[in-house]
Amino acid sequence: MSLNDAFRALDRQECLRLLAKAPVGRVVYTRQALPAVLPVNFSLDTDASVLLCTSPGSDLVAAIDDVVVAFEADEFDAVARSGWSVVVTGRATVVTDPAEHERLARTGPRSWMPLHDAAFVRIESEMVTGRELRGALGVAH
Amino acid sequence: MSLNDAFRALDRQECLRLLAKAPVGRVVYTRQALPAVLPVNFSLDTDASVLLCTSPGSDLVAAIDDVVVAFEADEFDAVARSGWSVVVTGRATVVTDPAEHERLARTGPRSWMPLHDAAFVRIESEMVTGRELRGALGVAH
Repeated sequence: MSLNDAFRALDRQECLRLLAKAPVGRVVYTRQALPAVLPVNFSLDTDASVLLCTSPGSDLVAAIDDVVVAFEADEFDAVARSGWSVVVTGRATVVTDPAEHERLARTGPRSWMPLHDAAFVRIESEMVTGRELRGALGVAH
Repeated sequence: MSLNDAFRALDRQECLRLLAKAPVGRVVYTRQALPAVLPVNFSLDTDASVLLCTSPGSDLVAAIDDVVVAFEADEFDAVARSGWSVVVTGRATVVTDPAEHERLARTGPRSWMPLHDAAFVRIESEMVTGRELRGALGVAH
């Protein structure tokens, strides 16, 4: 099996379709000059940006507001050694517009954690890459 | 449900036990000054370092050799909103010692991809953190 047989690059629409069905993704950022990653639930907004709902006082909000981050989701079958992974790279911003915040409170992601107050974080899908792995896993090539 | 009820910090041994049963993790690093993440299969060495097997010429090797990276694995139940996540943070180094390379060729991780030549990357488990989520997902607090 050649590498070309094992990997197939996914186009933006395929990536977004896969992201839309993933319940959990991982925010990749830098914290205190070290690489950091945090799994979170999310939803996709109508403009294909990634929406997170968290606490306004969270370490995550402090670390990623107005910073370029990566957001990854994947699904693998360890037996078949197949699956897919998608990475969105873009600027994360806390939603501050009251009308937008109200809209997301109705239509955006719900935190899987009880929150006294909710902050919505938007990650712009400036760069969306993904690949499908057919009978091989994503060791880097 | 309070946050304390929802989250439980995992000690190093619990983290390593969970990592040992995870088939896939995600290397978190920086590529061209941007946050990057790549899912890979892996194994744990006897010293609890994370071992990857990839191609010597891979972009991943070029990006992470002798660099501090994070390595994350998780497992969530989207219905129960429960699960766990573990993050190992430490220096990644390509194994260059011939005897060590030979040992890992016998006992280390096998690439899920056919490789003409295998490079082993070791991520030292300098910092190991994890948490168990009971009825809540890892939105940041």
